[in-house]
Formats: sequence, C-alpha cells, structure tokens
Amino acid sequence: MRFWYGADYNPEQWPEETWDEDVRLMHEAGVTVATVGVFSWALLEPHEGRFDFGWLDRVIERLHAAGIRVDLATATASPPPWLTTAYPDTLLTDEWGHVLSPGSRQHFNPSSATYRRLSLRLVRALAERYGHHPALVAWHIGNEFGNDNPRDYGDETAAAFRRWLQRRYGTIDELNRRWGTAFWSQRYGSFEEVLPPRATPTFRNPTQVLDFDRFGSDVLLENHRAEVAVLRELTPGIPITTNFMGLFKPADYWSWIDDVDFISDDAYPDPADPGSWKDAALQRDLMRSFKPDVPWILMEQATSAVNWRPLNAPKLPGQMRALSYQAVARGADGVMFFQWRQSRRGGEKFHSGMVPHTGTDSRIWREVVQLGGELRELEALAGSAVQRPAVAIVADWDSWWSIEQAATPARIDYKARLSTWHHALLDLGVNADFVSRDSDLSPYRVVIAPAVFVTRVDTLNTLDRYVRSGGTLLVAAPTGITDEDAALTEGGFLGRLAATLGVHIEELAPHGPHDPVTLTGAVEATALEWSEVVHARGADVIASFEGGLADGGPALTRRAVDGGVGWYLAADLDDAGVREVLRLVLAGSGVPIRDLPADVELVRRGGVTFIINHGRLPVELDMYGADALSGRAVDSPTIEPFGVLILTAD
Amino acid sequence: MRFWYGADYNPEQWPEETWDEDVRLMHEAGVTVATVGVFSWALLEPHEGRFDFGWLDRVIERLHAAGIRVDLATATASPPPWLTTAYPDTLLTDEWGHVLSPGSRQHFNPSSATYRRLSLRLVRALAERYGHHPALVAWHIGNEFGNDNPRDYGDETAAAFRRWLQRRYGTIDELNRRWGTAFWSQRYGSFEEVLPPRATPTFRNPTQVLDFDRFGSDVLLENHRAEVAVLRELTPGIPITTNFMGLFKPADYWSWIDDVDFISDDAYPDPADPGSWKDAALQRDLMRSFKPDVPWILMEQATSAVNWRPLNAPKLPGQMRALSYQAVARGADGVMFFQWRQSRRGGEKFHSGMVPHTGTDSRIWREVVQLGGELRELEALAGSAVQRPAVAIVADWDSWWSIEQAATPARIDYKARLSTWHHALLDLGVNADFVSRDSDLSPYRVVIAPAVFVTRVDTLNTLDRYVRSGGTLLVAAPTGITDEDAALTEGGFLGRLAATLGVHIEELAPHGPHDPVTLTGAVEATALEWSEVVHARGADVIASFEGGLADGGPALTRRAVDGGVGWYLAADLDDAGVREVLRLVLAGSGVPIRDLPADVELVRRGGVTFIINHGRLPVELDMYGADALSGRAVDSPTIEPFGVLILTAD
Amino acid sequence: MRFWYGADYNPEQWPEETWDEDVRLMHEAGVTVATVGVFSWALLEPHEGRFDFGWLDRVIERLHAAGIRVDLATATASPPPWLTTAYPDTLLTDEWGHVLSPGSRQHFNPSSATYRRLSLRLVRALAERYGHHPALVAWHIGNEFGNDNPRDYGDETAAAFRRWLQRRYGTIDELNRRWGTAFWSQRYGSFEEVLPPRATPTFRNPTQVLDFDRFGSDVLLENHRAEVAVLRELTPGIPITTNFMGLFKPADYWSWIDDVDFISDDAYPDPADPGSWKDAALQRDLMRSFKPDVPWILMEQATSAVNWRPLNAPKLPGQMRALSYQAVARGADGVMFFQWRQSRRGGEKFHSGMVPHTGTDSRIWREVVQLGGELRELEALAGSAVQRPAVAIVADWDSWWSIEQAATPARIDYKARLSTWHHALLDLGVNADFVSRDSDLSPYRVVIAPAVFVTRVDTLNTLDRYVRSGGTLLVAAPTGITDEDAALTEGGFLGRLAATLGVHIEELAPHGPHDPVTLTGAVEATALEWSEVVHARGADVIASFEGGLADGGPALTRRAVDGGVGWYLAADLDDAGVREVLRLVLAGSGVPIRDLPADVELVRRGGVTFIINHGRLPVELDMYGADALSGRAVDSPTIEPFGVLILTAD
Repeated sequence: MRFWYGADYNPEQWPEETWDEDVRLMHEAGVTVATVGVFSWALLEPHEGRFDFGWLDRVIERLHAAGIRVDLATATASPPPWLTTAYPDTLLTDEWGHVLSPGSRQHFNPSSATYRRLSLRLVRALAERYGHHPALVAWHIGNEFGNDNPRDYGDETAAAFRRWLQRRYGTIDELNRRWGTAFWSQRYGSFEEVLPPRATPTFRNPTQVLDFDRFGSDVLLENHRAEVAVLRELTPGIPITTNFMGLFKPADYWSWIDDVDFISDDAYPDPADPGSWKDAALQRDLMRSFKPDVPWILMEQATSAVNWRPLNAPKLPGQMRALSYQAVARGADGVMFFQWRQSRRGGEKFHSGMVPHTGTDSRIWREVVQLGGELRELEALAGSAVQRPAVAIVADWDSWWSIEQAATPARIDYKARLSTWHHALLDLGVNADFVSRDSDLSPYRVVIAPAVFVTRVDTLNTLDRYVRSGGTLLVAAPTGITDEDAALTEGGFLGRLAATLGVHIEELAPHGPHDPVTLTGAVEATALEWSEVVHARGADVIASFEGGLADGGPALTRRAVDGGVGWYLAADLDDAGVREVLRLVLAGSGVPIRDLPADVELVRRGGVTFIINHGRLPVELDMYGADALSGRAVDSPTIEPFGVLILTAD
Repeated sequence: MRFWYGADYNPEQWPEETWDEDVRLMHEAGVTVATVGVFSWALLEPHEGRFDFGWLDRVIERLHAAGIRVDLATATASPPPWLTTAYPDTLLTDEWGHVLSPGSRQHFNPSSATYRRLSLRLVRALAERYGHHPALVAWHIGNEFGNDNPRDYGDETAAAFRRWLQRRYGTIDELNRRWGTAFWSQRYGSFEEVLPPRATPTFRNPTQVLDFDRFGSDVLLENHRAEVAVLRELTPGIPITTNFMGLFKPADYWSWIDDVDFISDDAYPDPADPGSWKDAALQRDLMRSFKPDVPWILMEQATSAVNWRPLNAPKLPGQMRALSYQAVARGADGVMFFQWRQSRRGGEKFHSGMVPHTGTDSRIWREVVQLGGELRELEALAGSAVQRPAVAIVADWDSWWSIEQAATPARIDYKARLSTWHHALLDLGVNADFVSRDSDLSPYRVVIAPAVFVTRVDTLNTLDRYVRSGGTLLVAAPTGITDEDAALTEGGFLGRLAATLGVHIEELAPHGPHDPVTLTGAVEATALEWSEVVHARGADVIASFEGGLADGGPALTRRAVDGGVGWYLAADLDDAGVREVLRLVLAGSGVPIRDLPADVELVRRGGVTFIINHGRLPVELDMYGADALSGRAVDSPTIEPFGVLILTAD
Repeated sequence: MRFWYGADYNPEQWPEETWDEDVRLMHEAGVTVATVGVFSWALLEPHEGRFDFGWLDRVIERLHAAGIRVDLATATASPPPWLTTAYPDTLLTDEWGHVLSPGSRQHFNPSSATYRRLSLRLVRALAERYGHHPALVAWHIGNEFGNDNPRDYGDETAAAFRRWLQRRYGTIDELNRRWGTAFWSQRYGSFEEVLPPRATPTFRNPTQVLDFDRFGSDVLLENHRAEVAVLRELTPGIPITTNFMGLFKPADYWSWIDDVDFISDDAYPDPADPGSWKDAALQRDLMRSFKPDVPWILMEQATSAVNWRPLNAPKLPGQMRALSYQAVARGADGVMFFQWRQSRRGGEKFHSGMVPHTGTDSRIWREVVQLGGELRELEALAGSAVQRPAVAIVADWDSWWSIEQAATPARIDYKARLSTWHHALLDLGVNADFVSRDSDLSPYRVVIAPAVFVTRVDTLNTLDRYVRSGGTLLVAAPTGITDEDAALTEGGFLGRLAATLGVHIEELAPHGPHDPVTLTGAVEATALEWSEVVHARGADVIASFEGGLADGGPALTRRAVDGGVGWYLAADLDDAGVREVLRLVLAGSGVPIRDLPADVELVRRGGVTFIINHGRLPVELDMYGADALSGRAVDSPTIEPFGVLILTAD
C-alpha cells in the first residue's frame, strides 16, 4: 500500500523530447501515479471515428517503465472542434436561449444523445486498448462533471426533463398536484407542455425549479454511469472514480457514491484567505463521509497559485504541505496536483504545477520533492482509518437547492450556514462527519441539522427516532420548512419533529437592520437575519430573543426525551454564537471539547496524531510523543506557521 | 354601505372539503367581499374553447349563501400552458430578442392579437355565466396590468407601435421632425422602418424611447378597455375596476381613470423599513386623487410578510392594522388582502394570508378578526369624504419616463424626487392631493411642481394661469427642461413660466462630490447633485448657492405676481432641506403647519380624525374628543407603537 | 498658418434660416474651420443610390463665402434606416449572438461587405462632388472608428477572422502550435472550425482572444483604409485624418498612423474629477507621439458638459480654456468642439455646444469668443514644435489586451498602470513622449516600460540594446510575462532582458489584503496587489519587500551595464510610490525635476512657455518673462484657478 502522489499529466502540450525529462523528474519527486488523458479527446480521435493512440501508448509505456502507475481518464470532458462543428446540437443552451460557443471546455449539453454516443465510443476504444495494461491503476471518468456545464435549458433537455418527470410522477395530474399548478394558472394538460425553468417574467414554480435541479444532477450522473457501464463490461477489475469538487451545488454527490469505487476530490482553498483551511477541512470530511470505509484521493490541488480567481495568490512556504497533510489526516490516501508541468500556453498557463515555469531551481519544486519523500516515509499510514467522529452534520442538496431559490423568506447562503457549524466545531477541537438525510445516525452521539429546509417525512422520522434512541440532536433554523415537493410542511413547520423538540413555530420572522434581534440567556449572541416566533411546548427555554417580532420568545430550547436530547435554535448566528450554542450542546452529550490555539487542527488517523498550524504565527502545544517523520521525541513542541507535527503515541 | 373586507380567494388550491371551513372562517373574520378567479384561466378553460365552470359555480354559491359578495376577476392575467404551447407567438420578447418562457405568470405580449382574441372569449363566457349573479359586486379586470410584462419588443409589437405612431404623427416627415432624426442619420423613409427601442450599441433616440413608454402604457390600457367593452355590453350595471400598483412607472394611470368605476390599489410597504408608511401614505393619496369623489378600495395588502423581497420581514404586531386605517383615513372604502389562505405550494407560498400556514391559533388570525370587527363598527364612515387638502403635488408620467432615460444631465430618481416633497409635507402635518398636468388647480392654495421635466405648452400655461389667479406655485428643478417631444424647451428652460417666476436659467449644473454646493440665506441646506445657474429677473432671491458653477447665484427665489406667488427652487435637497423650503412657502400661503411627533400621521375623514403612530415608540398627544371605537372620552392620549386613535369631535 | 478653431457643424438639425446666423456667429467667435457631414448619410442619400447634395452645397457655399474652411466628413459612421431595413446583415452581433438594433448610431458590423460597398459608394460620390472645392481643407474619415461597434461576433466576422488567421499562420498546424490547442482538447482540424471568441462556458483560449483583438483593430483600420484609397485616387492632394479617442482599447493606433496625414483626437476629461487634467495631458502627449513632426488637431472637446456620464458636470469658468491651451502647449494646431450649436433634439441634446441652448448671452459663448480671439493673436505658434521630452513611456496595445483577459494572475487595469507613471512624471514637472514597442528609443535619456505584459523577442532586444547603448531603462512589473503568442516567455519571465537587468524572477506573487506587502529601503511604499519573488543576479537591491511570499527579497533593483542603467521594479505602487522610484531613476539619468505646485503644468512650445493652473486655488510662481497675449512683463505671477500664463522668454 502506498500513497498516490502525482498529478494530471498532459504531455501532449510538450514536444516528445520533454517526456523523458518528465519521467526522470517524477522519479525525483517520488511520483507514484499520473492521471493521463483528461483533455486528450482531440488528439486521441483527431477525426471522427479515427483514433490515434500512438502517442498515448508511448506515454504510458514510459510511465510504466519507470514504475509509475496510470490513472487513465476517459477523455470525454472536452469535445474536439470537429465534433462541435459537425454536431452543433451537442452545444449548451442557457436559460435565455443562448447557445454557448466552443472555445473553452466542457461545452456540451449533458442531455445530448449525440454527445453520449460519441463519448461512449471513445470510452470503449480506450478500454479496449488500455483496459488490461499493467500500469492501469484506475479509471478516471470524465472530469469535474458539471463544473462548466451544470445545466442546459434547450429542447433536447426539455424532452429529457419530461421523461424524468414522467418517471417521477407517473401522471400529469400527480405532477399538477405536487407542483401546486392550480396557482397562477399553471395547470398542465400533458407532459408535453412542461418546460425547463427558462427565463420567465417573474419567479418560477419552486417545485419545477427544485425538480430541475434534481434532474440536472441526475443527468450528470447518467453520463457518468453510462461510461461506467462500458468499463464494467470491458474491464471489470479496474477501480473507477471521478473527481468531485467538494460542496458542489449542481451535483448531489450522495447519489453518486455507489457508482464510484473510491472518492476523488479537487480542492482549491484560496491561499489569500487565512480562513480557507477550514473550508478545506470541511471538504475533506465530506469526502471521507461519502465512503467512510474507503480512503479517498485528493485528485487535484495546486502546488501554489491557481488562475481563475480575480486575485490568484501563491501558496506561502509550507502552505501546500500543510494542506496536503490535512487531506491525509482526514482520510486521503493520495495527494495529487493539477498539473505536472505548468503550461506555457492555453487557458491555465498561470496555474501552478509540480514543475513550475521557472523550473526545478525553485521553492515550489523543492516543496514537491520534500513532500513526495515524506509520503514514502509514511506509507504505512495508507489505508488506515481516521478516528470516527462522535458528531455528525446533515448536508442536504435538496435543502441547498430550495433555500437559495427566489421568493423565499430571506436570501440564505446554504454553504455559509453549513460551514459555520463545521468551523465552530473545528474551533472547539471537535471533528465531525457529514451525513445525508438517509444516513444511519446511530454511530453518533450528537447530530446537527442546520438549515435542512426540505425535509421528507422519512427524514423527520429518522431524526425523531435518533432522539428517542438516546441521541443528542440540534436542529437549527430554517429546518423543516417544506416537504420534498417544496410544499410548506403539512401540519406546521418541522412536522412531527416539533413535538419531539417541544416547540411550535408560529411565524418565520427574518429581520432587517432597523429591527436588530439578539439572544439573551445562556447564550448571548446576535441573530444575523433569521428569527422565528416559537412557543415552547415541553421544551426548556435556554435563550430568548430580544427585539423583533419574536421579542421575549424562545430562541434556543432543549428537551430531554426518552434518554435523548433535542435542541432547537430558531436563529442564524455568527461563528462565535454558534460556538456558544455548541458548548452547551456538547457539554450535555459528553463529547469532549479540546481548546486548540487559533488556526490549529488536530486529527487522529491510523495510530498517529496530526497537528497542523495553518496560522501565520508559531504556536506552542502542551503535548508529547514521537515525531513520526524524524522519530525524535517531542515534548511541548512549537509548531511554526504552516508547520505539521505527526505524533506517534508513546 | 359597508366596507369591503376580505381577500383574493383561490380555493382551487385546496381540496373542496376545505371550502366550507373557508366560509365559516370568513364569517368569523367579518369578511364581506372575496375576489375570485384571478389566476383561474387554466381551470376555467382546461382545453381551448372548453369551459369548466362547475367548481366556480360551487364556490360562488357557497359565498353567496354566507352573504359574502364576489369581486369576480376576468382571469386573464396568466394564460394556461395549453395556450402558450399552441400559440408561442403570444409570448413576451425582451429588448435583446429573448423570448421569455411561460412557467411564472403574466407571460403574454400585451400587443398579441391571439392573446386578445382568446382572453376576450374567456371574459365573454364569464360575463354570460355570472354577469347576473346576485353575489356579483364588481368586475376585477385582469390583475396588475403590466407588472411582469410591462413592455414587449417583438415584431408584433413593432407593428402596433408603428400604427400608434402613425395615429400620433400622421406623416413620417412629422415624426422625423419631432424625433429630431436629422441627427445621427436616423431619418426614416417610411413608418415601416421604425422599430421599438431594442438593444442598440449606444443610447437611443430619446423621443422614440419616450413614445414607446407612452405606447406601452396605452397598449396595457387597450387590453383593459377591450375587456371593459365586453362587460359593458353584457353586464352594463356592474361596476368595473382593476388593481393599480401605486406609483407604477409602466402605466400612466391618469389615462386609465375614466375606464374604471372605482379605483383599486395593491400596496406592499416594506415592514422592515421604518419609513415605508410614508410611501404608503403617498400611494393612498395618489389613489384618492385619481377619483376624488369616489372612495377607492385597497384591493391587496399583506397580513404580514411578502415573498418577493430579498428579505421579507413580517409585519410587527399592530402594523397591519395601522396601515389598514391609514388607507381608510385617506379615502379607502375597503381593506382587502392577498390572499385568503396562505398557499402551501407555488410561487407565493411564503406570502402571508388571512389564514396563515399555522392556522387560526395565531397572532395573524387574531389581528384579522379584530380588524374585521372594528370595520363593522365603523361602517358609517364608508362612503364619506376625506377633508380636501389645500396643497397639491404634480405627478407626471411623461417626466418620469424622460428623466430616467440615458444621456440626461444626471441620474435622477423621479420617485425619490416626488416622494421627498410628499414626505416633507407629512412631516409638517400637511396632507396633499396629487394632480396631473391637465388637472384643475383652482381648489388648491399651494401647488408644488417637482421635477416636471417634460412640460407641454399647455402645462406651462396652466401653471402660469394658476399663479396669476392668486395661487402659490413652487416649481422645483429640473422642471420645464423639455417639451412633449423631449426637445429642449423652445425659448429656454421653463418657457413662458420663467418670466412669471422671474428667473432665467442659463445653465444646468449637476455637481459631483469634489465640488460640493450648499444653499445659504433663508434656507440652509445641501444641494444633493443638482444645481443651476439662475438669474433673477424680477424675483427676490431667498437663498443663494455657495460652491460650484452657480456660486453666489440664486438657489431659491420668490416672486409675487397678480396676487399669486411663484417660487423657484434650482436644486434638489434632502428631506430636511425640502421641509425648510416648505415652511417658507406654506407660511406665505396661509396653509397651517401642524407639528406632529415623528412617524405620526393625522387625517380627517367623515367627521372623525385618524391619528396613527407608525413609530416604534409611544407618543403623547395634546388632543381630546371621543374614541370612535370604544366611545370613551379621550384626553391627551398616549398612542402606542402602531396604535390608532379615531377621534370623533366633541 | 492659423489654428483650426471651430466645431462639428450639423446644420441639418436646424431650419435653413438659422444657417445665416450660424455663419455670422462663427465669424464673431473666430471660427476658421467647420467639420461638416459627420452624421449626414441619411440626408445625403435619402434613398439607396439617390443622392441629395443640394443642402450640403448651400452649407459649404455659405461657409466658403465667410472664409471658413471645411473639414468634410465622409458621413459613413451611421448608416440610415433604409440601409438597415434593406440589409439587416450589416447589423452588429454581440458575443451572445444578439443582433443589435439600429436606432442609435454606428450600428454596423465592421466586417460587413454590404456596409463596405455602400459606404464606399457614398465616399466616392462625396469626393467627386466636393473633392476640388476650394473650401475643402481636409477629409475626415468616418467618425470615432469602433466607439460603439468595437467588435462583432457574427458569422461574416467569423469568416473574416479565419482569413486573417490564415494570413497570419499559414497552416492550421501552426495555429494549433501557437495557440496551444493541445490543451483542453481544442486542436483544430481546419481553419473552418475556428470561431470568434463568443460566449463560452468558461474562459477561452487566451491567444484566440488576443488575436481577435488584433484582428478587430485591423478590421476597423481596413474600413478606414478602404475610404482612404478612394480619396487618394480621386483627390490626391487633400490631407486625410480620422478622429482618434485617446487611449482607446479597441484600436491599436500605432498601426493607424501611417494612414492619416495628421492626427486628430476627441478628448472629454470629466470636469467633475479634479485630476482629469492629467488624463488629458497623457492623451495629448500620446497624440503628439504618434506623429512627432506633424502638429495634431484637437478635433472634439466640449465647451462645457457632456451627456453620456451618469453625472455630467459643466466645465467651471476658465476650465475649457485651460484644457484648450493644454492641447496647444502639447502640440495641437487646432481646438475644435462637438458641436457648433447645441441640439434641441436627439441623443446628444444635453451635450454642450459653442452656441448653447440659452444663446449668446451666456458664459459659454463669452468664453468661446475670447478663446477664438486669443488663438488668432497666437497664430504664430501654429506649426511650431514642442520641446522634445527626454523621457519616454512604452504604450503597448498587445499588453493591454492580454493583461485584462480572464485567467491571469490578477485583475490589472492597464490604463491605470500606464497613467500612474505619466501622472507621477507630471507631478515632478517632467514631460514625456510615448513610444511603441517598435519605436527608435535613441532620442531619450530615460525609457519607462510599465506593464509591458506581452514582449516579442525583438522588443526585448530593442530594450536590451537601449540599455547597452547608454540609456536608462526602468522596467516595471508585470513585464515580459508572455511572448506575442501569449505563451509564457521562453526561458523565464523577461527573457534575455532578465540578465541585462541582473534579476531572475522565480514567482509571480499577487497578494490580497490579508497579506500586506510594503517596500523598504531607498523607497518606502506599499505594493498594491502585485509583487514577485526576485533574485538579484548582478543587480543592486535598492528596495526590498516586507511581507508576503517575497518577504526580504528585492523589490527595486538597479544594474549599471555598458554605460547604461537598468532598473527593475517588481511591484505595482500608487502615485506617491511611483514618484519616489522616479526621483531615484531620474536623478541618476540627469533628467531635471521641476517642483511645480499641485495641479500646475508647464510645457515649452515654439519659444514660449505655457503654465496652466488646473487647480481650484490660485498659485504663485517664481518666474518672469513677458505675457504672450498682453505683451506685459510678468514677474512672480499669481495664476488664478484655471488660469493660463503664456510666457515669452526675455
């Protein structure tokens, strides 16, 4: 077992004489795996149906000879110019009816039958040629599904959407009922009348919009599955993955995880943002949570700067290493980069690589070589398990899609709402898993359900059962607002969960700056924009509102029931407020809090403890043990900025 | 005579068993009128030409049986999916050529002949079926004409625009002359060459743009009139209305008022904005001014939150009642809501209703029931007259359309300019009417003409005559800048009015933050962005400019002429500055100022005095009389936040 | 030799009886030249192929009789409605595929063959009719090429772009190599597959985008050249010009200058911005630099306000005169306005004119008459040379186009980067020329190369030779980042120039607000967003970085080599920082600094010295001589705000 260490390798950008140097440098850097072919369709199939594998044969042979394994991409992410010229029907149409042009990448309509047919022919040809090559370690399906083509609104998509709806609803009457088309004169006479949510004069049917997001995620998944089916048929023994993009709104990854053998992720925290290591930690935990028993691969990160932000800061010395170990600590068995050699030309030439534009006499190259060497030292850790967290946070795409629609009570940023809970746990030294609305919650002592706007009856049941089985559940508003049809929850917000939590929500009460609202009681904090008029019906009031419509009413409640505890927070709070709430909730649940210095994280995996300082200042820690890299004893160490300490227990 | 009290009633959203409960609750709430059918086209005509009135028969019978009268909508506001599927030519085209999709509401081109034909068939069918039903109290034409489809730019509209222009100008030579097409090589050879003002490389002909706004308003009105014609033919005795939207830029309501029997208005002041009650007061006064002798109906307001703002705050306790009485005080004979029962599904499910999602054990329901009861107590007030104001403000859509075009001296917000005068009058305890450029001004002691950018010769004559007949006229810049063709006023800005006011305007002088301009003299204030180089030619200089191009020159002038007084203000000021100017102007005119506490309004109607506290703090008043609701004597009362006192004189 | 003094004269906007008054007033104002016909196509050719020259004959005769010469426009800037109605293929298409509408001006696709054919027929007709008229002083080609139609993205343009590319690259393989299409699967099989850079899902190929800018500039130039060819054939002796727009991104004017006999410029500094006189000074210097030996003409400025900004402030008293003399001082032989008589109608009616809307009893008219008289007094200066600056700044459109593309290290405003150097020189009393990447640098003692992002090998060679020939070169980052193909410079940033400057650039290091970076050493300043990790390899470190990735490394270096001096600045600085750097660089080069009061400029031309105070406060100067206008002796004069002193040497 070894860590994956390497990069996207796109040698077609360079003359063939460079390739030997590439392999030599890969050896120097400790590269074990190269991802090949991601954007190679135009070179692999230079004319329709005529394949040219010669150059790729030579690339793979060179890698194989050097002991480097190949993660082979199916090359379907970016159709070549001949394809779009011959088949303009494959292009993307946006919600205004604009047909987007080729000239960048991923310019295909995910619902295009022509694209499907041509891409699968390519996959089949690749599988036939390389499926039994000894260097092949995995198949890499497409690339970042939906990144640039998340949704299409054209006529072929409309037809696909109608088929999807027909499968979901069976009859148009059922669709009419559940979409609420009796309002605004939207009643459909047949599925043929239904359209994607294109640009309209004012806001659209919310269930149509939500279903289109579900459909859109499913269409991306269908493309993935279609490729998987070809590969399972031709190369059943080769593991399959595709690179996710963390908390990526267009694709509900919970529905994808059964169709990959292991999870891969592309992660680009902003080096110019001192807090972005927390976003990265969240992303690592999400990846681990998708398949808790299978290590995941950090498939893409940057050695230094990216090229697509308004300002693309380089990583500071050590910052890449710190973020790499964060991934390993949180369950990654691989640290890969985009890309091996920085491009001289094309859209990503300002994106850093393992071999920078200035060559190997460089800070970046030295950091690359150091990390490669260290991962070889640590290879025993590969495959090991991360210590299972006692806390879980519900992450739910239906809620994300719904809560950010037009015509809701307030503009809520779901990612920010979710992150504030994970970040506050990090601040308290508590690691967490993510769970879906369908997950088994029994392994956790505490479950946090923040902004689960859309809750199906069975989700409410699951949460209810969790409390009644002795768990500690914290529900944070706005949760339980609608059912899966985006209809206001039958019987009142939170449905049956309301009784379990001991609350009744009478009114949603978002407030503007002229009517400030604070929490007072066991938690002192400011409600950002959201508050609710809540009545305690069995719950203890832990904190109350001051100001606004809910003035004097419950803001945070607690109810012990059947051995479990149900908390309800009727406001959105900033990180500090959330930390205060969590201290109360965790104290009651027996989950220990560890006070770490700011910007330091601590994770246990495979018998070692990773302590990483993401801050700009050195920190001192009151710990001891042995340094897993040097073997030296460690006592009350100082960790420099971006320093990493890997402690083995004594 | 009774007040209308009720709501849009859309029972088609609910199973029929709910309808009986609806009627029972309406009775409890004191509902007298229900507006039915606003969005029912798809259910009333489920297939082209095949009508299904059964469900509506049952709804109306139930209401009738309970003594609730029906304001029956013509159901034409939102065409059903079968219509747009069969007739895509009815859809809206925007200025870029995008065809907007159905899926929200009001997605029809107001110039569409197909829409006109199909909608009138529906109106005829409704009139034939229900036109003689005893429950029918009024026809409600369409819904909020132009709210989501204010302007269309497609080819059918282009043809209609050309016909409109041909009627206006007769010959293409006359159009060329008045549009000034000799400039920029825009001379047309025939009407066939003229287009709507679609997206162009740079700014468009301003007269074309202004005429397109006039045409656009007229097209909306034509749709209204076409429905009216059917109803007048079939049900001549039934009063007709359509719901306006206050100061609504796309429709010049002055031209609509002869085509309704009474005015209706939809008003949604933002509860999160502590000053929005002033905007509402302005809107009420405008509605009353449209038909001073006929009480108007508040056709739609919300019991609490709406759903279409970025942040939709609920109304605070009492706030709905206070705003309802504001409408009554300012001339409304009805207080209606959108909608009866809050939706569970569809685009407006987060919009509050009379029956909230959480049911009748709720603050909202209790406030609804209380208000219904009170209005029954006060029914003697219905039909009574509001005390006629002594002050009028000119509101002019031509000026609004022109002043906010591109390529003017500065970006001026007409609504803000108009509002600042009305708000300052409110602050001074002075109520006002609005007048059009064609109104009879003789009933008023003071007329204010703010930002009347476009002035026809007859408007200038009217204002001139008003001063010379003894009136007090205050003209606030920028006024009299162009004639009705958007051509700079012949003979200099203000035309003949300049001599009457005793001023000559040499230069328009908007100023940026680097060259601040203040007023000094009898008024001390800051000019926001607008100032002018003015020469006094017979006028007294009351305040002068300091700074900018006009430094040292007149800012506020006054000239007594023929018993009247003409004031000219050459700057835009904030509310405080406007109040200072008004104190001077009113003092000279004999209109009394009443110093009220902040956020309190006072209006007399039908022998009682309404005093409403819209502020967040209680206020004490030095008044006495009897409380019209309780009958109790009142002396120096304290009015709580959102409190209402209705005083009968002793 | 006399100065041009006059305006765009569009008499077709006015009844013919006005024309006699026009000529009388022109005489009063000292008008010598009128530009006629700029927007007259629709009147000159009211129907396709049928010309009506009668009115223009009469206009030109009147002017000629009054001794006013005619700068005759070719009238091709704005096609008439009959043309766009008959030939909609001439209209512009934007990158989303929207076809822009006629109704403003300049609504033609510069690549349209139909437009080309019809416009040249008009030019031929004009040349045949007026080419030998004694009043004709120059041809004025089109108007502001590309102002409103800089780029078209339609199919006819696509074909033209492909032809341009075929001429540039010869084979599709060469295009593929230089565009780097091996990345992102963009390899083209033939030129037929190449498209303009239309709207795409994500960022486009940077070389495609850069080439499209080069092509777009060339297409505009082709239209100009096509008209020139007709005129050279028919009227070989008449000088030709077209009005530039200063630093205008869509057209690389360096490539235009051989196709005009003299340079013309339209300049509209914002009167509301107290610093805009510096932008104007830059623009004047650029115009002079285009043809250093031929005086240029200020073809358009405003007497007071324009109409196209959000806020259009009038010029303050004297401000128009001060800016007019700035143009003369910096090499203009003409001061012209848009337009003679302010329009009453049309898109520019709020744009000031020589004859304002309020007539001749006005400040504006008095200033116009005064300036006309003075220019007659000063006519001996016409044709004289401006004192040649010792400093030159490189201005490079390739760099401008590239540096502002998507997917670069940071968002850099090229115009701001260029201006900061010119403005700082102004602050130091040092005047400068601009040079292109191909210019002869030998006349200059100091050359500044700021943000020359794109550097061809021969540009690097030119700069290198300049230093090695004894020049002082200051290179400011980001320079030398890519070659002409937008590929990262071979052999490292700056290419061979790096060795001459004695530096090696390891990393580009833009930094955000959380990681502030300052310069310390001989220059103390703040790096705005850009910094670099630089190694001194032979250079002396004059200032170092503090903070960020480059902490402790060189920020400003200096290397003496072969008698010349090469400076390198690895950061972007504000004006104050740039001044500090310049003080050091100039001190070493022997170019004298003159400490002038703020907002005062001083320029020598033709034996006199212009001193202009653009500030809002009077300034005292320690100078003496004789006033060129009054002839009076001057000693330590005070110059009022917007005052101008023209000193003859004693």
